Amino acid sequence: MSTIPRNQWYVAAYGSEIRNELFARTICDEPILFWRTEAGEVVANSDRCVHRRFPLSQAPSRLVDDKVVCGYHGFTYGADGKCVAVPGQTRVPRTARLTPYPVVELDSLVWIWIGDPALADPTRIPRASYLASPDYTTVRGLEPLAARFSLLVDNLLDLSHETYLHGGYIGTPEVASTPISTEVDDEAGVVYVSRHMDDAECPPFYSRSTGLQGRIARWQDIEYTPPCLYKLHSRIAPVGSVPNPDGTDPDAFHVEVVYAITPETEHSTHDFWMVARDFALGDEEVSAFLAENNRTVVLQDVEALDVLEQVIRREPEGYQELSINIDTGGLAARRMLARMVGQAPRNAPAAPTR
Amino acid sequence: MSTIPRNQWYVAAYGSEIRNELFARTICDEPILFWRTEAGEVVANSDRCVHRRFPLSQAPSRLVDDKVVCGYHGFTYGADGKCVAVPGQTRVPRTARLTPYPVVELDSLVWIWIGDPALADPTRIPRASYLASPDYTTVRGLEPLAARFSLLVDNLLDLSHETYLHGGYIGTPEVASTPISTEVDDEAGVVYVSRHMDDAECPPFYSRSTGLQGRIARWQDIEYTPPCLYKLHSRIAPVGSVPNPDGTDPDAFHVEVVYAITPETEHSTHDFWMVARDFALGDEEVSAFLAENNRTVVLQDVEALDVLEQVIRREPEGYQELSINIDTGGLAARRMLARMVGQAPRNAPAAPTR
Amino acid sequence: MSTIPRNQWYVAAYGSEIRNELFARTICDEPILFWRTEAGEVVANSDRCVHRRFPLSQAPSRLVDDKVVCGYHGFTYGADGKCVAVPGQTRVPRTARLTPYPVVELDSLVWIWIGDPALADPTRIPRASYLASPDYTTVRGLEPLAARFSLLVDNLLDLSHETYLHGGYIGTPEVASTPISTEVDDEAGVVYVSRHMDDAECPPFYSRSTGLQGRIARWQDIEYTPPCLYKLHSRIAPVGSVPNPDGTDPDAFHVEVVYAITPETEHSTHDFWMVARDFALGDEEVSAFLAENNRTVVLQDVEALDVLEQVIRREPEGYQELSINIDTGGLAARRMLARMVGQAPRNAPAAPTR
Repeated sequence: MSTIPRNQWYVAAYGSEIRNELFARTICDEPILFWRTEAGEVVANSDRCVHRRFPLSQAPSRLVDDKVVCGYHGFTYGADGKCVAVPGQTRVPRTARLTPYPVVELDSLVWIWIGDPALADPTRIPRASYLASPDYTTVRGLEPLAARFSLLVDNLLDLSHETYLHGGYIGTPEVASTPISTEVDDEAGVVYVSRHMDDAECPPFYSRSTGLQGRIARWQDIEYTPPCLYKLHSRIAPVGSVPNPDGTDPDAFHVEVVYAITPETEHSTHDFWMVARDFALGDEEVSAFLAENNRTVVLQDVEALDVLEQVIRREPEGYQELSINIDTGGLAARRMLARMVGQAPRNAPAAPTR
Repeated sequence: MSTIPRNQWYVAAYGSEIRNELFARTICDEPILFWRTEAGEVVANSDRCVHRRFPLSQAPSRLVDDKVVCGYHGFTYGADGKCVAVPGQTRVPRTARLTPYPVVELDSLVWIWIGDPALADPTRIPRASYLASPDYTTVRGLEPLAARFSLLVDNLLDLSHETYLHGGYIGTPEVASTPISTEVDDEAGVVYVSRHMDDAECPPFYSRSTGLQGRIARWQDIEYTPPCLYKLHSRIAPVGSVPNPDGTDPDAFHVEVVYAITPETEHSTHDFWMVARDFALGDEEVSAFLAENNRTVVLQDVEALDVLEQVIRREPEGYQELSINIDTGGLAARRMLARMVGQAPRNAPAAPTR
Repeated sequence: MSTIPRNQWYVAAYGSEIRNELFARTICDEPILFWRTEAGEVVANSDRCVHRRFPLSQAPSRLVDDKVVCGYHGFTYGADGKCVAVPGQTRVPRTARLTPYPVVELDSLVWIWIGDPALADPTRIPRASYLASPDYTTVRGLEPLAARFSLLVDNLLDLSHETYLHGGYIGTPEVASTPISTEVDDEAGVVYVSRHMDDAECPPFYSRSTGLQGRIARWQDIEYTPPCLYKLHSRIAPVGSVPNPDGTDPDAFHVEVVYAITPETEHSTHDFWMVARDFALGDEEVSAFLAENNRTVVLQDVEALDVLEQVIRREPEGYQELSINIDTGGLAARRMLARMVGQAPRNAPAAPTR
């Protein structure tokens, strides 16, 4: 049985990836064809000719005047997926239509609805408006992950791994040793995990980008909206500094780390990562440093999770993990995801082992 | 369940491929060992020592005086498959025998019977005598296809794809737009598909080989004898020229395009292709041009069909294609093949969608 | 159903492979972590963190003061497998423990018990004391074999294959043509196969290492203790020479060829090979010659058995081999192995076909 929730919005691409040309990506095991129309709208349809299954993204298929012409026998489809021409006859069968997907471009991201189109409600798409805001500068990337998406959810919900897997980049001893607080909003469908380190070592990732030296206050506030959008509000400030009662926070540096966790197949994932900051805006050197360092950190995760996927695939049936306090957020996320696919959570006790 | 018909003749090799040395090829999922005896006869036996399964085509196995000696423990077999020597004892077990296959060399092709040898009737082998005729010059090749054989049958029975997949080689707009006529001879087990273009663009494949320029009469008469032999009688002539009532046709150029479609496994195929012509006999330049161009066209098909095989293997159960008039011949061929394996045709309606 | 016997001792490694650092090897489908403690003892534990399955042999996991620290979240384990530290809390869950494996280092080999630790009896480990004796010089190696372990057992129990697969190295016509005698000691769990060639060609392997030329007496006495330890006592002497009644044998050269046959998975094997000799002790040139030649012979077997594994995986259900007199020892070994896993022997008749 699939572990991928359907009837959900997923990030399919960065808006900048989709131009007025054929673009293919598999989302939740469905091969999908994208293009941006001449009018500037992103459209998505099943990437398979209804005639003999040829992928419409595959050369010599081509886009002509906002219509895609199949490279095998010339079946031709409009942006809405309807077939408008077939070879050898003028009559086009009524049922000749690609499956169109609901698509919304928002906050620099292309969101796609996987499931019953009648249920697609764009107001349910979680927001990350700073990604398209002039008050922030954002770097971003996309890495292929040869592991099921839930392993990336586990990874991001438990940042204690920064100390070990990402030592020398974003990990310091305090991340693993500082207790977390976890909150679950089942109504809104959000898991919150907070770790406030009030007197911590400043890792290279932040000292080189902010200029802060020595001990810092470092707050990590996670906000995960299953299945796809993960936001880490990272606050770096001099020790003792706290935000003002009105919410302003002039002494602090804010970094919004965003992941879009999109299943490609049951066993592979599109790992979209973004780092938005409210300082050193437009500073190319800081941008390059943060992009390269965050990519390094993401690739450390990818390497580890690719290994875990193989471990899981070879392990005997019924293998049981052991969970502890740091896993509270991850287990809450698993429960939400399990409800979304209508099953019990992946072999994990409801509460951590005490 | 297998989709490969048994109790059928298949082309195993070109005669020129089999010399007085060990030669292995898998046909219909059966690993088979061939060699040409010193007397010049092609023999075929199962390519697996009866003792410990070592492939007899695998070094250090070797052919000595028309006997094959297994490279593992030295079991030795004659051309008829009978074991004549074993190690450590002089008595050879009665049951020690390779499985021999009925083989016929005809029209430059090595035909093999896959199934019950008692049913093998050489008179049922379909002919293509021009392949070995001095009145024709033939070029040929063999490409490995990582797709089930029925995808190549579909491909060749519907030549409207020439316009799209082979544009610039053999495809022109008229191929896709000209209606076809289809005829099925269930008695003889042949599907005929004809497309007569009486005033068509001359594609480079024919203009450069015949010297004809501008508009031409181009007739395509397909004769497919499932499962293996596909013949395309291609007639190229000046516009308005027709054959004489007595069958002679001096103004026309005739090209016989032959494919032997032999399953290697359930999901791979030996794609034998031949192009025989009745003009420019022995002209090396024309031969080289036709060979290179036809190989290019075959590789375009191979690339497309390899993709389709992967699409089919990943698609959900019960996926339905949509068929139109151009598919009439292909659907007829599917029905014949389905009857040969005793099942309903691969998910296709009995008639095209109107 | 698995064909790998459990509740058995297997060679996991050469003692020299295990140092005071993390070392991983899969034995009988179980991923296992080894290290040699600072006190010099080899320890073995399951190679999977109890928390989120991260392999403890995988960087950035590391060994610190005889404790292994998981590279993902820092779970820390002692040499006995007990967890001594976890992130974010001081309390370590009682159940947090790796699975420890019984290990014995003996005769230069690291033996591991696969199965119920309560049944592990070190006195049942078969011996090969010459491997660690100053009266012998030993060369050795380890080759990965992409074939089930039983194919290597078959191979080594029937040395008639030397004549064909290893001609020019250790094979001569006499090996295949000399009858064998087979003895089975079910009590002790040993299969003996003897082939005494009293007047045989001296193969290069022995002529170049012993200096003997021309015809020799060549005795091969196999002693196989299923599942893992295979010993070939090889005696090379001038024709006519026999051991003295008191067991001394001054005119002969003795070579002890040892294989440890350890399943890695159901379809792959660790092929440990050793060649111990009682002559030319310490002679580097003889050592280099024997090592290189034996490795060549082992790789000839590996290549053949890798092919057989693929043949078996593709063959139809119920395929039957044919066995003859030379297979008596191999069939006896199969019966013992089948009893160890509680099933009938792999498709082989109880007796060879006469």
